[in-house]
Amino acid sequence: MSRHVLALSGGVGGAKLAAGLAAVLSPDDLTLVVNTGDDFEHLGLTICPDIDSVTYALAGLNDTVRGWGVKDETWQAMAMLRALGEADWFNLGDRDMGMHIARSWRLRAGDTLSQVTARLTGELGIAHAIVPMSDAPVRTQIGTAQGWLDFQRYFVAEQCRPVATGVRFEGASDAVPSPAFAAALAREDLGAIVVCPSNPYLSVDPILSLDGVRSALAGRRVPVVAVSPLVGGASLKGPLGKLLGELGRPVSNASIADHYGDLLDHLIIDEADAADVGGLRDRGLSVTVCPTVMCHAGDRERLARVALIAAGIETG
Amino acid sequence: MSRHVLALSGGVGGAKLAAGLAAVLSPDDLTLVVNTGDDFEHLGLTICPDIDSVTYALAGLNDTVRGWGVKDETWQAMAMLRALGEADWFNLGDRDMGMHIARSWRLRAGDTLSQVTARLTGELGIAHAIVPMSDAPVRTQIGTAQGWLDFQRYFVAEQCRPVATGVRFEGASDAVPSPAFAAALAREDLGAIVVCPSNPYLSVDPILSLDGVRSALAGRRVPVVAVSPLVGGASLKGPLGKLLGELGRPVSNASIADHYGDLLDHLIIDEADAADVGGLRDRGLSVTVCPTVMCHAGDRERLARVALIAAGIETG
Repeated sequence: MSRHVLALSGGVGGAKLAAGLAAVLSPDDLTLVVNTGDDFEHLGLTICPDIDSVTYALAGLNDTVRGWGVKDETWQAMAMLRALGEADWFNLGDRDMGMHIARSWRLRAGDTLSQVTARLTGELGIAHAIVPMSDAPVRTQIGTAQGWLDFQRYFVAEQCRPVATGVRFEGASDAVPSPAFAAALAREDLGAIVVCPSNPYLSVDPILSLDGVRSALAGRRVPVVAVSPLVGGASLKGPLGKLLGELGRPVSNASIADHYGDLLDHLIIDEADAADVGGLRDRGLSVTVCPTVMCHAGDRERLARVALIAAGIETG
Repeated sequence: MSRHVLALSGGVGGAKLAAGLAAVLSPDDLTLVVNTGDDFEHLGLTICPDIDSVTYALAGLNDTVRGWGVKDETWQAMAMLRALGEADWFNLGDRDMGMHIARSWRLRAGDTLSQVTARLTGELGIAHAIVPMSDAPVRTQIGTAQGWLDFQRYFVAEQCRPVATGVRFEGASDAVPSPAFAAALAREDLGAIVVCPSNPYLSVDPILSLDGVRSALAGRRVPVVAVSPLVGGASLKGPLGKLLGELGRPVSNASIADHYGDLLDHLIIDEADAADVGGLRDRGLSVTVCPTVMCHAGDRERLARVALIAAGIETG
């Protein structure tokens, strides 16, 4: 039976649906592939924001009030780093720091990012596979009037203020999918691909830009279902709305559909955007309209079930 | 006028006198050379316990209740590391972790330990020179029935339980003194050498074992004054008493005097050990008897002044 689900996720919004999928699918039935284009080296640490968002969400460690990072967080190491004159533009919590230290020393010891991620998520009791998109470094950069900015510079230090003229993924065309991503793409029982409600340009495109991924996805004749990251014609969080405008595209689900193009079979949009349905269907897409804002665990599971139903995957 | 003071220090006990010396001497008049034999690599971080003890003491950041580490400390990163299955035998506080992260990334970027230490202590507002004994790695190891144990394994993981059969300093004979240590040894205005109340075998010997240090110290005809780490015929803190017994030496100031031998001109001992005076004088040492337990800033300054008077150094 073709029931394995391959989900592609970025950070916060994607991580919520990832947690919903993990709540309704067994570990055998789900591979969560996570964007690593936002990863960066900072203060000697390898920081993987999207892997960590998905990890913390699945482990129940995510801070739901702040919306990112670990709950019950403190900031003492950062305060000391600031007192020592070190860069403080990227705020790292103490518990989060433990994750970066563990990851960084194991990477330096020679483990791959896949191996490190499998180990650390396993230690946190996560049974589902959280998989980096690639073990090779891929770095998302934003074109601006100041030149190409590394993603975290743009996103955190500059708070997305510069006008974006383009997006590129340094290293992507030479980077192959991680072993578990490649294995999921090739699984006989692959039943669906779910694109989580992450930024298509910044969080999903890096995954699609890896060597061979677009053709492998297109070659698998399984339903590809995306959950739109737009709600009420705006991005719920992050720079998607601003970015769409700067790239000369309307802030609407039509842009999301155009962006994914032929890859996509089904788009799930928020009930606030029900007016988009006609235009999307005219493009040949099937569409589900439902609440997509995920505030609680119940919301995440409900949206996961909607996505799986759209993909023809049965859940218990 | 020969008034520059070169002080040799280990961790906690030594750090207290180092802070006392810094309180009564101007930055121009003091070079604090700190043992790095206890340094180690752990979880990808370079940890320098004695440099940090001296740094925290001079910055007023030391925890006076616990007796080590930073005050107002928390342990969240360590809790996460434990949850991730990482080694937790060496407890690292969050604020302390900030120090290790700053030091480690700067060392990896190519700075020497001297450069990193100068920078980080300067950022904390410390005007006095805290100087690693060497920029080359030297690693103290303890001989035991299980073989040679790295110092922190012996000291922290094994809590000094194994019977010590010897002590060695890996790398010391090839390691030259750090530039600022070498410069202090060669200063025209060097007026005294103060050996802080640190473990002679574990904290001071690594410094004396560096290439050329013993002969350089002996060649300078300036007073060498040590403060004994023993109080009432026992070590105030740490494994010195146990170690002396295992190495077949009495736990007494006679052993301290014998260990330093001809290098030493003057020994400051605690009033609880006043009975030792006669035997020490018979060895040709001059001796001061005074309270040596440093509980408060006033105690540290008072003992620093006693040491400087014994060395013939005038203070304001």
